[in-house]
Amino acid sequence: MDDETKSSAEVTGPERLRPTIRDVARHAGVSIGTVSKALNKGGNLALETRERIIAVAKELGFRPNSLAQSLHRKQSFTVGLISTDSFGRFTMPIMEGLEECLTDRRMQVFMCNATDDPALEAQHVESLLGKRVDGLVVTARRADKRPPIGPLAHGLPIVYVFSHADDPDALSLLPDDEGGAVLAVQHLAELGRKRIAHITGPEHFEAVRLRRAGYFSALAAARLPRDDAYYLPGVWSEAWGREAVARLLDGRVQSPDALFCGNDQIARGAADALRERGLDVPSDVAIVGFDNWDVMTLAARPPLTSIDMNLKALGREAGERLIDMISGEKLGGLQRRPCSLVVRESTGR
Amino acid sequence: MDDETKSSAEVTGPERLRPTIRDVARHAGVSIGTVSKALNKGGNLALETRERIIAVAKELGFRPNSLAQSLHRKQSFTVGLISTDSFGRFTMPIMEGLEECLTDRRMQVFMCNATDDPALEAQHVESLLGKRVDGLVVTARRADKRPPIGPLAHGLPIVYVFSHADDPDALSLLPDDEGGAVLAVQHLAELGRKRIAHITGPEHFEAVRLRRAGYFSALAAARLPRDDAYYLPGVWSEAWGREAVARLLDGRVQSPDALFCGNDQIARGAADALRERGLDVPSDVAIVGFDNWDVMTLAARPPLTSIDMNLKALGREAGERLIDMISGEKLGGLQRRPCSLVVRESTGR
Repeated sequence: MDDETKSSAEVTGPERLRPTIRDVARHAGVSIGTVSKALNKGGNLALETRERIIAVAKELGFRPNSLAQSLHRKQSFTVGLISTDSFGRFTMPIMEGLEECLTDRRMQVFMCNATDDPALEAQHVESLLGKRVDGLVVTARRADKRPPIGPLAHGLPIVYVFSHADDPDALSLLPDDEGGAVLAVQHLAELGRKRIAHITGPEHFEAVRLRRAGYFSALAAARLPRDDAYYLPGVWSEAWGREAVARLLDGRVQSPDALFCGNDQIARGAADALRERGLDVPSDVAIVGFDNWDVMTLAARPPLTSIDMNLKALGREAGERLIDMISGEKLGGLQRRPCSLVVRESTGR
Repeated sequence: MDDETKSSAEVTGPERLRPTIRDVARHAGVSIGTVSKALNKGGNLALETRERIIAVAKELGFRPNSLAQSLHRKQSFTVGLISTDSFGRFTMPIMEGLEECLTDRRMQVFMCNATDDPALEAQHVESLLGKRVDGLVVTARRADKRPPIGPLAHGLPIVYVFSHADDPDALSLLPDDEGGAVLAVQHLAELGRKRIAHITGPEHFEAVRLRRAGYFSALAAARLPRDDAYYLPGVWSEAWGREAVARLLDGRVQSPDALFCGNDQIARGAADALRERGLDVPSDVAIVGFDNWDVMTLAARPPLTSIDMNLKALGREAGERLIDMISGEKLGGLQRRPCSLVVRESTGR
């Protein structure tokens, strides 16, 4: 999963605004530690080596104050994790990946829960700065835009993950919702389905709008007709999945032969409603969910094909990028990582 | 919920093995801060006051080394949370309660995930000690016995929550599984149900054995007959709930008029199986689940009455007891906190 994430096509590539200590090391043909010694006038280096490294640093435009964030100076080996989600379903795998990555590097995570309360968040940031954390990871209940962490944390490396900072310079790592929807619809089209409906959540979620865009573009790519009666935004519940199936089957439109659902709960409700009407999943109607939440996908009858946002890998990557930033790299921009298709019986494995 | 927890009957009361700084303050009629000043020879105290406090401390047998753990000396205002659960469903509310409690006290939580790996756990403990944490909270995927944290952490305040240290001196906070089962069966008996079956998980879980004990004792208390064919241990899944209903209805025994299920997934599966056989919940068969996990209880048809283990309150209490221990109190023993009954349509609200 990590490999897959790394080979991803990025919507926005990492911005390299200025050279890092790694660039200096590579150009000078020495280790990062040696560069650090040379620039900090520490250690036991030949004068010639020191001068050569300083020349390379100057040539590349490496600014010594990047070093303030270097791994080699004043590091506390702690980072803060601020979540506005009360340890929810999406935050859990992100935290797990992040914690694994940082444990590997012998760093520790201060955990703070801000539950959408800006005053509490500011208090947490202040406490974390008091602990001299080396950086912050900010995550959330949903991937929508949020204000960046306030001026208190100015200059501190920050990675937003499953959380989109309303600041183009900030590094935000998000799943590629649109690409995930394309995977789902492509899969259904490849199975020969012609009438693919999309039952989803509320449109004020950015994820709903992105997945809708992917649904429409994949229909077009597969030369399948687009029927607005097949697009049903609603809420994130099983009950809505059941109700939406009733609307589709009892309405004026021709019955769909496939459903792409905005989450696994909707997909499970839809599967129940179809079975209770005597229709078979997948032979009459194939279903793809979203989230690959095993509590839903495995308990559904039949088990659900779903789109996985690879959140654990996203959490691990957040840790890796934070360490890069602590080491002096300047990273920023909104970056989206690919989802995966997990095939189960609801599309006829 | 907090009040309820505090008024609980404890299976084992807190052990007071030695006097605390609070005892000295109370007996000397001064504040804890004054005792601290007197014993640390700090501050601006009258010699007479200082001598009186030292005399009280000696009389009570207060050992100065208790002070090493006092809130007034060398405190880092950080604690470590070690979980062997990968941020799972039971750990989440515990972490939330713990974090809220400690944030109120301006303390911060280092989060570590040990995933049942003793070597990783030892590494985490070592790192946390290196950070000079004031104490540890240990939680787990299940409430079964575990070895205590190793000798590295000797002398450090530790609270085990939803995790049972195999050490009678350690403080372990657990939900009262047996009492929760009694609540469920009492509720069904009060509704006039006479044939109450118990479908549950695997018996190697201590929680299964404790809930079974509560089931049998509540049947006896309600003067209802006990039929071993009504007790069905199995696995923690919806599929098992459906299968167990098939066994009960197709077997030689008289059909039950109520089900007490060991978790909400089993209860949901049972409700589905009953509905699909044309039986009504609750008029034909009433159902009580366990865990009060809203993903299951609210999505089930009908919504499920369930037993809530009050895990957030348990997490909060773990934080409060840890602070007591950091302040010098000596607490220990296995303590169980009551569950609550949450009534919904599956028992006919």
